[in-house]
Amino acid sequence: MFLVNGAGKHCIDVTDRGLQYGDGLFETLEVVQGKPLLFDLHLQRLLAGCSKLLIPQPNLELLTAEALAICSDAEHAVLKIIITRGCGGRGYRQPDPVMPTRLLSRHPYPQYPDRFYHEGIVARFCQHPLSINPLLAGIKHLNRLDQVLARAEWQDDAVQEGLMLDCEGYLVEGTMSNLFWIKHHTVYTPAIERAGINGILRQWLLTYLDRAGINVVIERFLPESLLAADQVFVTNSVIGIWPVRQLNDQLFSVGPLIRELQAAYQDVRCGAQR
Amino acid sequence: MFLVNGAGKHCIDVTDRGLQYGDGLFETLEVVQGKPLLFDLHLQRLLAGCSKLLIPQPNLELLTAEALAICSDAEHAVLKIIITRGCGGRGYRQPDPVMPTRLLSRHPYPQYPDRFYHEGIVARFCQHPLSINPLLAGIKHLNRLDQVLARAEWQDDAVQEGLMLDCEGYLVEGTMSNLFWIKHHTVYTPAIERAGINGILRQWLLTYLDRAGINVVIERFLPESLLAADQVFVTNSVIGIWPVRQLNDQLFSVGPLIRELQAAYQDVRCGAQR
Repeated sequence: MFLVNGAGKHCIDVTDRGLQYGDGLFETLEVVQGKPLLFDLHLQRLLAGCSKLLIPQPNLELLTAEALAICSDAEHAVLKIIITRGCGGRGYRQPDPVMPTRLLSRHPYPQYPDRFYHEGIVARFCQHPLSINPLLAGIKHLNRLDQVLARAEWQDDAVQEGLMLDCEGYLVEGTMSNLFWIKHHTVYTPAIERAGINGILRQWLLTYLDRAGINVVIERFLPESLLAADQVFVTNSVIGIWPVRQLNDQLFSVGPLIRELQAAYQDVRCGAQR
Repeated sequence: MFLVNGAGKHCIDVTDRGLQYGDGLFETLEVVQGKPLLFDLHLQRLLAGCSKLLIPQPNLELLTAEALAICSDAEHAVLKIIITRGCGGRGYRQPDPVMPTRLLSRHPYPQYPDRFYHEGIVARFCQHPLSINPLLAGIKHLNRLDQVLARAEWQDDAVQEGLMLDCEGYLVEGTMSNLFWIKHHTVYTPAIERAGINGILRQWLLTYLDRAGINVVIERFLPESLLAADQVFVTNSVIGIWPVRQLNDQLFSVGPLIRELQAAYQDVRCGAQR
């Protein structure tokens, strides 16, 4: 199910700068009982991204109406919103005026086995590094070749996520998730000032941890820090919170703090159902 | 004029990974009397890029036939070829099998004033830095937000090109061109192992300089090196070779070596006309 600038169709103009240059950004949301989760946080990030990329802000009322309409009869689904700089001529110079393209699509919720949530997943390190650019870091933009190439490193369904380092060898995130670990009751997650995505679950989680008075350290880490962890988990808006039970050959336990975080986020999901 | 997988149409599937992730690459060529210039070099780079991005190589016979057909009645035009990883589901994982999308388009040749070629252009430094990633450097891929944001820094038609540094402050290239300068009969150009595009005109020029026995230095340079130059010029497949007569407030002359290079490339262009 696709809506392009409000019209139900399955194609987009070939001159759209989303295609020509990856010139745009996107959001991916879990939909529960017709309601996109943490919708306000996603809209805030979308607006912040538009601002950084100098793309005119979409009409939020219209975008919200379309998002709710496309999801209204979905019990459990994924909503993807793409905003591009719209159509333009050949060349990097922006069209004048910019008329952004708004693309909403609804997808079936992936059929993940319950054990990913309860027992945890298997992860690996990827060889392909993340590009470094402080000016693009954090933004969920459409330039995603790094993730595509990292995800292409394994076909084995026994591995659910790949962890990525930046070009200088610092840990950043998973191909589709943010990365956290726990050591001695402190939560660690890599800084995303030079590479990486400012995930909505990451934002939600950092707020939760702050309110709960749990110590959090956000900085640049080498892989060694992660390998010395007691527990590891990854987050994104579709999977929620998945423990990592195995990273390469190393096993990790799933302790009470991860269970507490999962339960707290489950409350958010159930709140959407009421 | 657009050809999408051989069909004359103006739209592309919304699930195309070129749109979803900038998951593809492109070539831009000058067309003279129906013939795309340096076509073999462009095809070689396209194939090398496909190989690096793990995109199945396009059928060269078909691609060549379509390129020649779309350009056949063009006296002077621009040909753009885009290859994407084709349509796929949500998520970074590659579709299986990958069925690449082939998009050819023909555009009017831009009406540049003759003085850009003869007297030179005005350039400026851009604030937006190029992302660093040795694994993506050189490839003319569709992740072009850096160029878009750098090009958005000026609207003044008196400035024709912006020069970009990487995130560490090293000179790389122009937003749409490769960068060269001359000092004491030696030609300098930034290395593109960490950021930048392996331009076809750059390739052609380096081969020419090598055969002509002219000394060339390719390494990482800070902007100071450029500012100490005797002459400066930029190259791409559409503009050819443009001297830079002014960079910010500094003026540069246009000497005999630039004229020699322009004349040599003019022979390539005229060869196409015969």
